[in-house]
Amino acid sequence: MPAIAYEGPRSDNPLAFKHYNPDELIGEHTMSEHLRFSIAYWHSFRGAGLDPFGAPTIRRAWDGGSDPVSVAKRRMDAAFEFFQKIRAPFWCWHDRDIAPEGATLAQSNKNLDTLVAHAKQLQRATGIRLLWGTANLFGHPRYMCGAATNPDAHVFAYAAAQVKKALECTLELGGENYVFWGGREGYETLLNTDLKREQAHLAAFLHLAVDHAKAIGFKGQFLIEPKPKEPTKHQYDFDVASGIAFLRTYGLEKHFKFNIETNHATLAGHTFPHEIEVAASAGLLGSIDANTGDTLLGWDTDQFNTDVRELTLAMLSILRAGGLGSGGLNFDAKLRRPSIDLEDLFYAHIGGMDAYALAFKLAKKILAEGKFERFVSERYSSYDSGYGRDIEQGKASFASLEKLVLTKLGEPAPRSGRQEYLENLVAQYLANGA
Amino acid sequence: MPAIAYEGPRSDNPLAFKHYNPDELIGEHTMSEHLRFSIAYWHSFRGAGLDPFGAPTIRRAWDGGSDPVSVAKRRMDAAFEFFQKIRAPFWCWHDRDIAPEGATLAQSNKNLDTLVAHAKQLQRATGIRLLWGTANLFGHPRYMCGAATNPDAHVFAYAAAQVKKALECTLELGGENYVFWGGREGYETLLNTDLKREQAHLAAFLHLAVDHAKAIGFKGQFLIEPKPKEPTKHQYDFDVASGIAFLRTYGLEKHFKFNIETNHATLAGHTFPHEIEVAASAGLLGSIDANTGDTLLGWDTDQFNTDVRELTLAMLSILRAGGLGSGGLNFDAKLRRPSIDLEDLFYAHIGGMDAYALAFKLAKKILAEGKFERFVSERYSSYDSGYGRDIEQGKASFASLEKLVLTKLGEPAPRSGRQEYLENLVAQYLANGA
Amino acid sequence: MPAIAYEGPRSDNPLAFKHYNPDELIGEHTMSEHLRFSIAYWHSFRGAGLDPFGAPTIRRAWDGGSDPVSVAKRRMDAAFEFFQKIRAPFWCWHDRDIAPEGATLAQSNKNLDTLVAHAKQLQRATGIRLLWGTANLFGHPRYMCGAATNPDAHVFAYAAAQVKKALECTLELGGENYVFWGGREGYETLLNTDLKREQAHLAAFLHLAVDHAKAIGFKGQFLIEPKPKEPTKHQYDFDVASGIAFLRTYGLEKHFKFNIETNHATLAGHTFPHEIEVAASAGLLGSIDANTGDTLLGWDTDQFNTDVRELTLAMLSILRAGGLGSGGLNFDAKLRRPSIDLEDLFYAHIGGMDAYALAFKLAKKILAEGKFERFVSERYSSYDSGYGRDIEQGKASFASLEKLVLTKLGEPAPRSGRQEYLENLVAQYLANGA
Amino acid sequence: MPAIAYEGPRSDNPLAFKHYNPDELIGEHTMSEHLRFSIAYWHSFRGAGLDPFGAPTIRRAWDGGSDPVSVAKRRMDAAFEFFQKIRAPFWCWHDRDIAPEGATLAQSNKNLDTLVAHAKQLQRATGIRLLWGTANLFGHPRYMCGAATNPDAHVFAYAAAQVKKALECTLELGGENYVFWGGREGYETLLNTDLKREQAHLAAFLHLAVDHAKAIGFKGQFLIEPKPKEPTKHQYDFDVASGIAFLRTYGLEKHFKFNIETNHATLAGHTFPHEIEVAASAGLLGSIDANTGDTLLGWDTDQFNTDVRELTLAMLSILRAGGLGSGGLNFDAKLRRPSIDLEDLFYAHIGGMDAYALAFKLAKKILAEGKFERFVSERYSSYDSGYGRDIEQGKASFASLEKLVLTKLGEPAPRSGRQEYLENLVAQYLANGA
Repeated sequence: MPAIAYEGPRSDNPLAFKHYNPDELIGEHTMSEHLRFSIAYWHSFRGAGLDPFGAPTIRRAWDGGSDPVSVAKRRMDAAFEFFQKIRAPFWCWHDRDIAPEGATLAQSNKNLDTLVAHAKQLQRATGIRLLWGTANLFGHPRYMCGAATNPDAHVFAYAAAQVKKALECTLELGGENYVFWGGREGYETLLNTDLKREQAHLAAFLHLAVDHAKAIGFKGQFLIEPKPKEPTKHQYDFDVASGIAFLRTYGLEKHFKFNIETNHATLAGHTFPHEIEVAASAGLLGSIDANTGDTLLGWDTDQFNTDVRELTLAMLSILRAGGLGSGGLNFDAKLRRPSIDLEDLFYAHIGGMDAYALAFKLAKKILAEGKFERFVSERYSSYDSGYGRDIEQGKASFASLEKLVLTKLGEPAPRSGRQEYLENLVAQYLANGA
Repeated sequence: MPAIAYEGPRSDNPLAFKHYNPDELIGEHTMSEHLRFSIAYWHSFRGAGLDPFGAPTIRRAWDGGSDPVSVAKRRMDAAFEFFQKIRAPFWCWHDRDIAPEGATLAQSNKNLDTLVAHAKQLQRATGIRLLWGTANLFGHPRYMCGAATNPDAHVFAYAAAQVKKALECTLELGGENYVFWGGREGYETLLNTDLKREQAHLAAFLHLAVDHAKAIGFKGQFLIEPKPKEPTKHQYDFDVASGIAFLRTYGLEKHFKFNIETNHATLAGHTFPHEIEVAASAGLLGSIDANTGDTLLGWDTDQFNTDVRELTLAMLSILRAGGLGSGGLNFDAKLRRPSIDLEDLFYAHIGGMDAYALAFKLAKKILAEGKFERFVSERYSSYDSGYGRDIEQGKASFASLEKLVLTKLGEPAPRSGRQEYLENLVAQYLANGA
Repeated sequence: MPAIAYEGPRSDNPLAFKHYNPDELIGEHTMSEHLRFSIAYWHSFRGAGLDPFGAPTIRRAWDGGSDPVSVAKRRMDAAFEFFQKIRAPFWCWHDRDIAPEGATLAQSNKNLDTLVAHAKQLQRATGIRLLWGTANLFGHPRYMCGAATNPDAHVFAYAAAQVKKALECTLELGGENYVFWGGREGYETLLNTDLKREQAHLAAFLHLAVDHAKAIGFKGQFLIEPKPKEPTKHQYDFDVASGIAFLRTYGLEKHFKFNIETNHATLAGHTFPHEIEVAASAGLLGSIDANTGDTLLGWDTDQFNTDVRELTLAMLSILRAGGLGSGGLNFDAKLRRPSIDLEDLFYAHIGGMDAYALAFKLAKKILAEGKFERFVSERYSSYDSGYGRDIEQGKASFASLEKLVLTKLGEPAPRSGRQEYLENLVAQYLANGA
Repeated sequence: MPAIAYEGPRSDNPLAFKHYNPDELIGEHTMSEHLRFSIAYWHSFRGAGLDPFGAPTIRRAWDGGSDPVSVAKRRMDAAFEFFQKIRAPFWCWHDRDIAPEGATLAQSNKNLDTLVAHAKQLQRATGIRLLWGTANLFGHPRYMCGAATNPDAHVFAYAAAQVKKALECTLELGGENYVFWGGREGYETLLNTDLKREQAHLAAFLHLAVDHAKAIGFKGQFLIEPKPKEPTKHQYDFDVASGIAFLRTYGLEKHFKFNIETNHATLAGHTFPHEIEVAASAGLLGSIDANTGDTLLGWDTDQFNTDVRELTLAMLSILRAGGLGSGGLNFDAKLRRPSIDLEDLFYAHIGGMDAYALAFKLAKKILAEGKFERFVSERYSSYDSGYGRDIEQGKASFASLEKLVLTKLGEPAPRSGRQEYLENLVAQYLANGA
């Protein structure tokens, strides 16, 4: 008997998928191979509609019961049922999402083993795969002042033990990536903080993770997920650029890429495509946490994103970068607190998946027609030959360029950037549809 | 006859300096050696009270006249009179602040030569020194789409020629640093932008600057001044961390430090002390643009900073980092648009200099008493020995730490971060005075 | 000979209008009667690509010449040519946009008379009408500390004289509205401000305007245009709600409605539809300044809006409120600074007008199908009968309701808000097109 | 035996009160009569260090036990012990802070009766008084879509019953005010919202409260507490001005004043003194929620405020408005999540109270010396006579003022606003101390 009474989208349902068909061939790959959608266990199966001023609003049938491990199994059954009904090829988890924390680390690990074994069966039975795993190093009070950056080495050690286990579980389930989001890796006040020492500890921690991956044979991609703030006043991995600075400073740039979240981008003062482009320009684009925020609010609203314009621009940047490789599009998004019904969980994911699917098709069409690419290439074409090429090839000098300007080039002629024209083109692509 | 009728602060003036006395010995150095105040030529001698919605409000006696070079000389005389009256040891300029742009680059350079010669005399006569020079690569329409990052190599070449000259003038005037603020080095829309190529061009440009400095024997420090946005939608040197990522990506980290501006820090979502600490932790703290913004407004207000609390926290970070070296405290701050009188220029600088002087004394006192330092050292002391030291020294592994936790350490005991206590301490230092 | 060499959009131009056809009948009215587009003289014919860090980039052929009044006439000829080519039925101006400020008020008024006479001819010849006029009470240095709220009664008097004339010119040209945007009516610092006295002066000023309109027979609608800040640190008409508080406090609510600007809404922390709904709920929706901002930037970017999703939601609110009456959609939007060509002016307006036209059609379709209306009515239907209706009709009391809850109603059953479902519906309407 | 082992501040404690002495006479009143400090029960006795990403960190000895009513009593005993030790004359509560919610409203009311009786004894025994009471209409899931603005009349009725009881309990305990903070009175999305109908329901609710107060003889002051957002996307009482618009629109302005919270002011884009001045200018300044936020974060951090500069400016506005009357300074502030010790609760309140006490003394001194007052009066003196007075007295017209300008006044002479001078004055008062 299914845990989820609701059948999900049907073809005669006005809210069934309009654009997402996992089996549709686009080029040589199916749409689900292109988009690699993933469901976030924490929001969709542990989120309860809590907010800083309010108690939980969402109750699911499978959450009741007195034995936490049994509840966890039943919940996981429901989750895999949902993954299938919504036709998502991947899922993601934190260790504590899938298995209850025990009284000791040993007990927590045992719970985890039980649930990982259960997940393995469910993965095999359904074909659903693990996009990435991660450890929750922010919820428990022990992490209130950081995990790898905690002033107490004891907490560092505890976090190390927890990540060791999470990494092993990710390997066990064939996870294609492992993510570090350092929600507590930052500071509340500089008055009590040794910023440099904390960053060095964070780097040491990540080096240990790299070493352990090697030791156990985990070949998945490590990902850092930047976020500027919340819950912490200031997080070290503020944005992709901060992450690059950190990775390069501590010799970690070969081992990590970025998991970019839309809402984290805007909280940092950047657009979503900006963060994608910065990561891609460094060859470090890893994966996407697919959601959206509200730029008029100052916290992570983690909403499902139905803004096809924004997503089309993002997909353009992703496709130009050669795609996400082992990454995917993970719906790190949650139901609005009053969206308490199971139907809402379906509506939310259908909306988010459909918006991405449409954006993907539009981006493919735009790239195939090449108007933007040609515009941009042409705009920079003065660097393709002559003294422009010399500049790019390191053959110019201030003296040679000054001489050129004084004797030959004179004053440059200004040239329109054509922003409105290009924005109109985008609007037309959107209005014309895929 | 002095250009400035107003005599400036006198001892019986209720608004004379209360805390700043350039000759006062503090330790082995005078206060002016510690603080190295500098006056920003652009705001104080070229600023006219213009804003995006309003015409100039500020008219100075010395600004009139039909020959721009003569006007520029007379203005410079007034400026040096002001520097002396306000007792500032340094000044800073952009090339186009001190000498008018001509019809051609050759003419602009000639004007610059005239004014640099004039400045050299004035520097010699007064003992005022040049903290740094820079080129204005943002005001002229040719730079509307960037200077080093312009899609047109012609503009790159022009900018190269302009910086070449500005660097030579800085050398000629004994400038101790040279600054790059890339106000147009970013993008307005990703639709017409090749972000990676632009960043590579910027790096190429800076390498050429390093080469030229070597060629002409300029030994001053190169500084990058981060700013997240304004005038550009998105500037590549968003903040110090972005700057570090850029410098390390392009092999420039040995040649550049950071010029940190308070208002730019807050526009990027950081506190002023944060940016100082990030730069200092990388050994890249260079100089300070001393102003403040309004965190309820979204643009660079460039106000004189009289918030002694903020400045004390900043001075603590600067002093802990070992000071600013060849850098200084440059008042990159402008009069409010209705502050149209010459007196206001004095009031503004007195307020700003006094606030920094008081903050400096408070920070020295706080460091001498060592309460915060001891608190912080003690907080991280678990890393000074045992497995904590092993972690710092790279002798631990996930496996060794897991074993420790499972067999010996168990659950960490939480410990208060004492933020309110530390904030009270700060408030008490401020209330007790220097 | 036309002033504007560029012919504008043609049917074979890929950027010609796709959705806007002024003559298309929609219901009983043409599209241009529904949408009442207006061109903003200041941005499109006086804007020069200036920004706080950069000199003008945009030069138009008609701007040259030594006699300012002749230049102003030639510019106006070009403007009307543009209005026709772009097929906009309305225009808007500030007094100083159309006629140069003279050495005295008398001279300024004379210049204005000349240009208003010229405009009257052009209006007659083309059929273009005046949506609204206004006086520029912010650009001249005399207004640096406010116009009606200036601490100096002399400035109040000057502003009164200027608005008197602008109102008379608006009447002369058949203007359907008169707008007050108080860009300097606010404060820079409370330290030098009597907030209450300033607000009373502003109210006195508006009462004088109402009186003068009556005296001269101006029957147009007065409009207040809220903006929270910029150029002023804090503007009294922060948003629509602040405006309502002000109007009601000073007995002006019968005489004014609101001119709502998209970018001002977002600067105040509200969405564009929010401000429309607040004004409409008070019966005070007047007109629209059609542009958009960038919520990641903190200043008024005044961009052309091509975000059809945002505009569709706005049009839904406008249509539900019964439309804009004597108001219209005024493109208070400017070219990006690098968009220096005349073509860009066409592209920009085509994009903005087309986006509004498509949004209008979508909103009509959505309203005709009634899905959202039915959802909302049903959601509040408990107030349509029984104790719900008693509450609305003032027949309930705390005691009666408590008794009901204690004896009969018990705990309410929660009900989903269905936000994701509704957002999907919006996305589908957009994807399906008009 | 005391519940609180920690003895609190002692005279030899470096963190004892430095500026706050409740019994010190200042003018005719003691400092505690001037400042009317109040402790917020919710933060200090129900707050547990929860945040959106983390579990509770704070455990108090008195919170254990299986019978919630007994626990509630023991907690209240501890609270009153704290109120005494910290020497606060007032406290504040929400209904659900002091007594546990029961399975039914009847049970909740019974619990409340028990605890109110207990509180009454404690108030009598200690002399501590109730500044205000309020009902928690935001935490329970039933209020997820609003209380008075809920689309379901059933919830309106439930909220009415709850406020009825809370009002009666406030009366029973001699509460001097009753507060409405509408944390859920707003909307999440306009797509499912009837904004006008919701506002009308909110007004109806407040009218019922006024009626019930009359019926039971409650003479305390009703207060509205504005907040722009959080938890709700958009709250109707966005700021003081929005509140004034609402009160005046619905005829409630005689019955309500404002409870202004510092952090809510800054979230709305205003300074704390701005909100005080706006309320005071309308005669509607009621009470203060004394805390502070972090303008670089976008949520309510509710920190203890030790910024004496900000508080001095606020106290100046409060004192100029004639003080707070029946209002007070309620510490609606919470410990940072890692500040888990009881000592931290003392440190936090000592810091906050001391900062206000010092600010109060500084403001008294500043007002006694009158420099700012004289500056401001003089700045507006042109309205004290002649045509300026005519303007204020309604005796001028646009025609009379135009004539004056054209024939007599001519161009106004600009006058400096002296912002930097005034800011220096503030800095000097702060540096000189009380």
